[in-house]
Amino acid sequence: MHENLLLIEDLRTFLKPEQILSDRDSLIFYGRDWIKDFEPRPSVIVFPETTDEVAQIIRACAARNVAVVPSGGRTGLSGGATACNGEVVVSLERMRRIVEVSSIDRTMRCQAGVALERVQLEAEKNGLYFPVDFSSRGSSHIGGNIATNAGGIRVIRYGNIRDWVVGLQVVTGTGEILNLNGSLFKNNTGLDLRGLFIGSEGLLGIITECTLRLTTRPGEVVRVMCALTDVNAVLPLLSFCRSRLRDLSAFEFMEGSAAQEVISRRSLRDPFANQYSTYVLVECEQNDPGSKELVESTFGEAYESGLIQDVVISNSVAQAQELMNIRDLIGETLASHYTLHKNDISVPVPTIPPFLAELHTSLADAYPHYRVLVFGHVGDGNLHINVLKPDDISDASFWESCRESDERVFSVVTKYGGSISAEHGVGMLKKEFLHHSRSAAEIALMRGIKAVFDPLGILNPGKVLPDC
Amino acid sequence: MHENLLLIEDLRTFLKPEQILSDRDSLIFYGRDWIKDFEPRPSVIVFPETTDEVAQIIRACAARNVAVVPSGGRTGLSGGATACNGEVVVSLERMRRIVEVSSIDRTMRCQAGVALERVQLEAEKNGLYFPVDFSSRGSSHIGGNIATNAGGIRVIRYGNIRDWVVGLQVVTGTGEILNLNGSLFKNNTGLDLRGLFIGSEGLLGIITECTLRLTTRPGEVVRVMCALTDVNAVLPLLSFCRSRLRDLSAFEFMEGSAAQEVISRRSLRDPFANQYSTYVLVECEQNDPGSKELVESTFGEAYESGLIQDVVISNSVAQAQELMNIRDLIGETLASHYTLHKNDISVPVPTIPPFLAELHTSLADAYPHYRVLVFGHVGDGNLHINVLKPDDISDASFWESCRESDERVFSVVTKYGGSISAEHGVGMLKKEFLHHSRSAAEIALMRGIKAVFDPLGILNPGKVLPDC
Repeated sequence: MHENLLLIEDLRTFLKPEQILSDRDSLIFYGRDWIKDFEPRPSVIVFPETTDEVAQIIRACAARNVAVVPSGGRTGLSGGATACNGEVVVSLERMRRIVEVSSIDRTMRCQAGVALERVQLEAEKNGLYFPVDFSSRGSSHIGGNIATNAGGIRVIRYGNIRDWVVGLQVVTGTGEILNLNGSLFKNNTGLDLRGLFIGSEGLLGIITECTLRLTTRPGEVVRVMCALTDVNAVLPLLSFCRSRLRDLSAFEFMEGSAAQEVISRRSLRDPFANQYSTYVLVECEQNDPGSKELVESTFGEAYESGLIQDVVISNSVAQAQELMNIRDLIGETLASHYTLHKNDISVPVPTIPPFLAELHTSLADAYPHYRVLVFGHVGDGNLHINVLKPDDISDASFWESCRESDERVFSVVTKYGGSISAEHGVGMLKKEFLHHSRSAAEIALMRGIKAVFDPLGILNPGKVLPDC
Repeated sequence: MHENLLLIEDLRTFLKPEQILSDRDSLIFYGRDWIKDFEPRPSVIVFPETTDEVAQIIRACAARNVAVVPSGGRTGLSGGATACNGEVVVSLERMRRIVEVSSIDRTMRCQAGVALERVQLEAEKNGLYFPVDFSSRGSSHIGGNIATNAGGIRVIRYGNIRDWVVGLQVVTGTGEILNLNGSLFKNNTGLDLRGLFIGSEGLLGIITECTLRLTTRPGEVVRVMCALTDVNAVLPLLSFCRSRLRDLSAFEFMEGSAAQEVISRRSLRDPFANQYSTYVLVECEQNDPGSKELVESTFGEAYESGLIQDVVISNSVAQAQELMNIRDLIGETLASHYTLHKNDISVPVPTIPPFLAELHTSLADAYPHYRVLVFGHVGDGNLHINVLKPDDISDASFWESCRESDERVFSVVTKYGGSISAEHGVGMLKKEFLHHSRSAAEIALMRGIKAVFDPLGILNPGKVLPDC
């Protein structure tokens, strides 16, 4: 702790007083993300304004061998931005400058602390579109989005954020500033270090600036709620939609139990007269004059041929939003009415029906009193598994049993070649489960790569990689 | 050399006789790529049929500390697959199995030695589309395409091959087999090793199998040849096209001198009555009933407003091909009529006009007797610079002066934040120029990463990274 005090003195030599906070409230506020499982105990929070200041901070920390936790909008769900051991938290929130929008090559260069929503709005102002989107858009930072390779609701059409990052500026664990790929669309000169930083969760360096790719704004979306006999009908519908609808932009799955929870708890209008075991919400961009008619004829045919049991097609922006609400509000509704344990996994798309059957059987065998509700971005193989705490057991024994049930969930995921963390990253929460998705050889290589960028091991220690 | 003979004995213990070639013709044939600057001198060529055999070969080479050169279709243009120092060449050409095409998640899993054209045809057979394309499609291997992050003619719409690789199977320098990402579209569990292998030119391991993403087949393309006043008119036309044509799939630039060379030498029909200083060939997919009318009205307006001086729009598949020939045949035509020196560079798109002006001035100042012709994928910032040997100087002194003129070219490229190798990679040919595009810190990090995957330094030594 003595080193930490001396370090604060060092930081004062080049940072202004308002760039260094160490009051108790700030330490707690900036010392963790949305996951509250870990007690925040950083030693100081610093707020650099330039990449050079970030480099100076890292060099000062390296000189005293004090660990650093990079911090964005702190909306993470895996404890990746948690500081529990006297670390220096480097918050990027003062680095929120949009440096340049180029409509010629359709790129935006901005600092890491710009909120995702500002990126989207700035693109729109320039007649363009940044397609990565998810519910924490207002508070999450673009730097954090990149460091965790954010996905979201439009991956089926636009991919993950990895596909939208042209260049990065980063600071490594030795305080070296790297400018990776600038604003080039083609550049084959050695290893792609830029790509390595995307999804690296702070292990290799701090992202300080990025150049993003923008694209053409899509037309208004039409949404279609489909009722299906069961989960086995989902993939034939996906194939059918893809063969007809070039501009398919979302394909979301909900078990009937999940949809009915949100419809009844939120008093939403049920689009159908009957209840069904399986729902799919399809979204399609209307980019051409004939888009709406194409959607109507596509789902008319799907109904006639028995692919779907019932269907509602939105006729207005308001109705499109109404249909989206059923899907969008599931997470929030479950969280406010139940104590629940969530997993965000992915499996290869063709294996979804057998995977889901085996998952439910495996959990029902061991935990017959659990209610398990599944929904997710089925077009990407991404499912959110929600386990609701039964009323008759205590919180403590529920959390205890979830740790065991996770092993059960993850071994089914592994059996189907899936990932234990599709979108949310590893952070603190999943690191001891990493072996389910990455081999021992891969984990050893990741350690080796980390040592190349961070020889002192001061960058976000204790995250992602399991304890040795 | 003694170790090499013992190694061949080792290889015979697990490979069939026809999987090991060491006759002189084979050594020369498999010991180099399309670049003939380096004398091939491998010690043996081996032809594994499975990933396990590749791993066994690597372990055998590691045990005797003999270097390995991975070899695909050998269509590289930078000497990346050249073996000049008694290396073992590992040819992937017997690994040409298409393992699986899944129309549900639209992926194809295949071995590394499958030719690009076979991937394209197999996708087509399944009603799908693999969009990466370039002229060596018939002989280049998908594994080599991935190891060099191939680009080609449709990058403006579909990106580089990096964007189409879902998963990879690779063998590292210690003979470890890694299965990276399987067929998952979302997987955030630590560092993206898959991405690191894309474009790694054999430094980190041998790619043995891949899972590719496929997409919807586009409609027939319409092509538009535009005549422009000068290079300054190119970017306004690009912006205009992008604002109107959602399905723009190529935007190719030709200096008038390059286009006129190919038109006259190949006796092609000149689309225009007059000659112009600058041409742009636009390609657009006709994915909707109104596509053709949209293209016609767009270029009608471009002509009316003075953005272009003249325009020809293709009215048939044959005419679309005729227009493409003018662009497609430039490289071949120049190569067969001149001794020429080529560079494949990229710069940020908005800087193309000042970059081209400065490039021409800089070369004309130092080499007033050179003819310099430029064309390329201008929508991606990718330009091919061709220097033609004047008749009155010898080949030897031309090549000598090109080495100097390259420094001149690359320093202008660097000034504009460009890359000295947009598509062709680094290999042997560009490694001593790497510092123009990557900082000393980046090069040191690349060496560090290579050592993690290849601690003995036996994988493709002497490539990409400059000699120490």
